[in-house]
Amino acid sequence: MEAAKDANLQLNYYQKEDQVLLAVDCIIFGFDKEDLKILLVKRNLEPEKGKWSLIGGFLKKNENLDQAAVRVLKTLTGLSDIYMEQLHTYSNVDRDPGQRTISVAYYALIDVNAHRFGDIQMDSANWFDVKKAPHLIFDHNEMVQKAIARLRRRALTKPIGFELLPEKFTMRQLQTLYESILDKKLDKRNFINKINSLDVLVKLNEKDMTVSRKGSYLYVFDKEKYEKKVEEDGFNFKI
Amino acid sequence: MEAAKDANLQLNYYQKEDQVLLAVDCIIFGFDKEDLKILLVKRNLEPEKGKWSLIGGFLKKNENLDQAAVRVLKTLTGLSDIYMEQLHTYSNVDRDPGQRTISVAYYALIDVNAHRFGDIQMDSANWFDVKKAPHLIFDHNEMVQKAIARLRRRALTKPIGFELLPEKFTMRQLQTLYESILDKKLDKRNFINKINSLDVLVKLNEKDMTVSRKGSYLYVFDKEKYEKKVEEDGFNFKI
Repeated sequence: MEAAKDANLQLNYYQKEDQVLLAVDCIIFGFDKEDLKILLVKRNLEPEKGKWSLIGGFLKKNENLDQAAVRVLKTLTGLSDIYMEQLHTYSNVDRDPGQRTISVAYYALIDVNAHRFGDIQMDSANWFDVKKAPHLIFDHNEMVQKAIARLRRRALTKPIGFELLPEKFTMRQLQTLYESILDKKLDKRNFINKINSLDVLVKLNEKDMTVSRKGSYLYVFDKEKYEKKVEEDGFNFKI
Repeated sequence: MEAAKDANLQLNYYQKEDQVLLAVDCIIFGFDKEDLKILLVKRNLEPEKGKWSLIGGFLKKNENLDQAAVRVLKTLTGLSDIYMEQLHTYSNVDRDPGQRTISVAYYALIDVNAHRFGDIQMDSANWFDVKKAPHLIFDHNEMVQKAIARLRRRALTKPIGFELLPEKFTMRQLQTLYESILDKKLDKRNFINKINSLDVLVKLNEKDMTVSRKGSYLYVFDKEKYEKKVEEDGFNFKI
């Protein structure tokens, strides 16, 4: 009894600490066969109502942050089963002028064309080229920049594309994806050699005939080999 | 006036959200010329009083998370001006049985021997070999594992050692540091070639005579070149 009372007394120190609001904000990357894009929404609440914003929401009592990020994404876009990764936690005292809110940023990768959006009203949401993103509320531009840097680093050390490309794609589309992530032109022959050395692609006996008269072979990722490469220590995709 | 009233009404939605306690926990890595270590403290409060724990504390109203991490480290150890990096935010609903607390983990790198500890009572704190760390409170073992993985990835893609080694060090000490981070033996000649190709070391005209009769040349990092390599896209330190 004494011990339990002691413990209770000591637990009171939790009560003296400042509590804060915790939010998640999602940087949603998409690829439309040409450009790397992010999904933004028009904020419908003060402060900064009517400005472009990342998709976000507050953490609830009965969920962890990963679950909150999945819920926010699903509620606003209808998307589920999406690749998401925690990026960074933003905590400057005045970052949200409404009330002090700490925000945990997540980034997600999706194939723009494979998804139909749910609840989101698409007149208040839009895909933007990452290089032409508008001024966003709070510190959301900073979050986007960090997400791009993370995605770039990931592309340099792990295979990427599985989540961003359609199931079947041409070598040219894969190169364009890498070029848009790394934001530079790549030499075609070097790129093909590098990708082939990763040994994560399966060449299909099938062509995309829309691109040229000769057509371009289609590829799929070998999911097992791809996952194995992602798990490994990493490589250096210097091109 | 109407607009301001409107905005105030809308700001009320902040009030309806659940608030949480936010803490920082620090994984402090040190290197003592032989092993990679972490600094742990004996927890002096319930719950889990008397068990080994990372160094931590709650976020205050007037500081951001980086500042909280610096304050916690400084208060408990007297250390300041330390390399720290935010690692990951932990949020499982029941992770802290005292009260729901979200914890943002930071990791820090220090040279064990270069520091004198301040306020910390060293009978309640200890350096542990990372491979022999005891069972820790809450999800702290998970934090340590993630920090080791991050440090390992960092060592594979960026030069490392500046923060963990004494100012002057032998090639053997640098190799031992890499071996303890990567947790494997490295071939001496390959290691020296790889390190030299990074071009971040300056060989001194001075020897450490304690290691052998012939002695071993001492090196320092060229801080400017080192920082530049850290800023760059990364390389692959496959050995």
